[in-house]
Amino acid sequence: MNVPAPIRWENGKLLLLDQRRLPGRVVFEEHREVESVVRAIRQLRVRGAPAIGVAAAYAMAIAWRDGDDLEQAAAELRRARPTAVNLAWAVEKMLVALSRGVDLIDAARAIHEEDRAMCEAIGKHGAPLIEPGCRVLTHCNAGALAVSHLGTATAPMYLAHEAGIPFHVYVDETRPVLQGSRLTSWELTQAGIDHTLICDSAAAHLMADGGIDLIIVGADRVTANGDTVNKIGTRSLAIVADYHGVPFYVACPSSTIDPATATGAEVVIEERPATEVVASIPAVAGVKVRNPAFDVTPAELVTAYATEFGVLDDIGECLRRKSVRKP
Amino acid sequence: MNVPAPIRWENGKLLLLDQRRLPGRVVFEEHREVESVVRAIRQLRVRGAPAIGVAAAYAMAIAWRDGDDLEQAAAELRRARPTAVNLAWAVEKMLVALSRGVDLIDAARAIHEEDRAMCEAIGKHGAPLIEPGCRVLTHCNAGALAVSHLGTATAPMYLAHEAGIPFHVYVDETRPVLQGSRLTSWELTQAGIDHTLICDSAAAHLMADGGIDLIIVGADRVTANGDTVNKIGTRSLAIVADYHGVPFYVACPSSTIDPATATGAEVVIEERPATEVVASIPAVAGVKVRNPAFDVTPAELVTAYATEFGVLDDIGECLRRKSVRKP
Repeated sequence: MNVPAPIRWENGKLLLLDQRRLPGRVVFEEHREVESVVRAIRQLRVRGAPAIGVAAAYAMAIAWRDGDDLEQAAAELRRARPTAVNLAWAVEKMLVALSRGVDLIDAARAIHEEDRAMCEAIGKHGAPLIEPGCRVLTHCNAGALAVSHLGTATAPMYLAHEAGIPFHVYVDETRPVLQGSRLTSWELTQAGIDHTLICDSAAAHLMADGGIDLIIVGADRVTANGDTVNKIGTRSLAIVADYHGVPFYVACPSSTIDPATATGAEVVIEERPATEVVASIPAVAGVKVRNPAFDVTPAELVTAYATEFGVLDDIGECLRRKSVRKP
Repeated sequence: MNVPAPIRWENGKLLLLDQRRLPGRVVFEEHREVESVVRAIRQLRVRGAPAIGVAAAYAMAIAWRDGDDLEQAAAELRRARPTAVNLAWAVEKMLVALSRGVDLIDAARAIHEEDRAMCEAIGKHGAPLIEPGCRVLTHCNAGALAVSHLGTATAPMYLAHEAGIPFHVYVDETRPVLQGSRLTSWELTQAGIDHTLICDSAAAHLMADGGIDLIIVGADRVTANGDTVNKIGTRSLAIVADYHGVPFYVACPSSTIDPATATGAEVVIEERPATEVVASIPAVAGVKVRNPAFDVTPAELVTAYATEFGVLDDIGECLRRKSVRKP
């Protein structure tokens, strides 16, 4: 399948695909210092919870190689975006590697590789959800661009497509940043997967007509009880799916789970600038805007979680299997 | 309050505010023939179920004055947009007036005036729903621009504001045509009503935080059982409101009720061109798009209907009161 990896480590250089320019242009930018990666994360040049984690790990590795202050680098990276747990997780993992005297470039590569393997496993477990002829809906971009290799929500789609299963994907455009129309639609086009773009608010109409068989979304953070923090609009979609009896799956590697946070009510939701909403649309000059970037989908609305350990009803099971696997 | 009427009949001339140019420019265009009004309706220069009806009535009056074929004019107008029942209703009313030998310019003016009076009555009955300090959410534009005078969904807001009640309105931007950011926000700005623009998909997050006290929307058509056909996204909003226990009101003059259609399942939903969705956003060239313009909100999700006869739980009650009023 033809989807470029958004993060590359080549000849000791970190290359990030500038996702703001998609689908018009495919541009990789070299990043030589932590500040530049922090800026790329803030400006959504690199986005998607796992991808942010991997980029931050490489940024830590660069800082280590250059002899910079790693505590300061860690603090700057953690502050870059508040919601995705992978960012703090990757930074923490790098600090642990540092304390153990591990080569941080190897450590970053290991995080990147672990991410790849998790996507592959999510795809393998999730692919059977996609039956021949089915209509899948997804929101935002939890694809290869958000992660590496196969993505999370898209991993089952890529593997089902590779296995020759015919299916159709409905892609929410995902206002205001339009990750659906810019990124997911572009990825699926590259991979040759048949899909249709819709406005976010049209999903309920399609479900009313029996036109959607299942929904798969990614997650920026899943709390201990299974509440899912994901792109704004996910909560609405899950409520609407529940009303219509459409199964709602969250694809999440275990790195996205935050066992230290009991429920979604404890998560601070990032409010982003008004310009993200009004810059590109006709609007009254100076109008007040609220632009929450994420929302919380209650665990009760999630049919199951597609993780690297299987498609699990209960997110606690994912944590138990993870703890068993580790020494 | 400072809101220009979108339809004016002045010195025997029909002037329609070109709503596609709002909020940037306020331009009234003169329409001298049926074809030109049909085009304005098709291109959404004039939009909103009641406004389309009033414009069609004046178009019939012009055709009558000019000695044109009125059966043909009626057919062309009915075909201009399929969903709004007011269009067919107004055209039918003009044909009845013709058969009775009434001056059709007077008949069109009467429809316009009736519309004005219905808005006023909806506002009077609906204003008590807006308590001091409350947060109201609305979708699309069922304002003065969609109707005449006070609008339907906005009528309670205008009268509450005039009465000095402090409240805040959240305005869904309403993709893809952005009637919320272009029209409702502009209207409320003109009237000095405090409001905040949000992306359609953010409404659920605001409700989760207890930030919305009630929702008022308009309707393009209400079927005999109370199912409500309105702008795409309304169904989603009603389901989400129900999940959060937020009251959901439909403001509709009795002219919007279609007693001949039993339920929303019988209504053909207009699918509009893909360009409406992708022309103004970054998207993959040639991507497939579905663009349903409306959806159906089941009657079970509507708390009550704000009509010219009162705020009624049951739409049948509105029809009964209407039939009593008539000779």
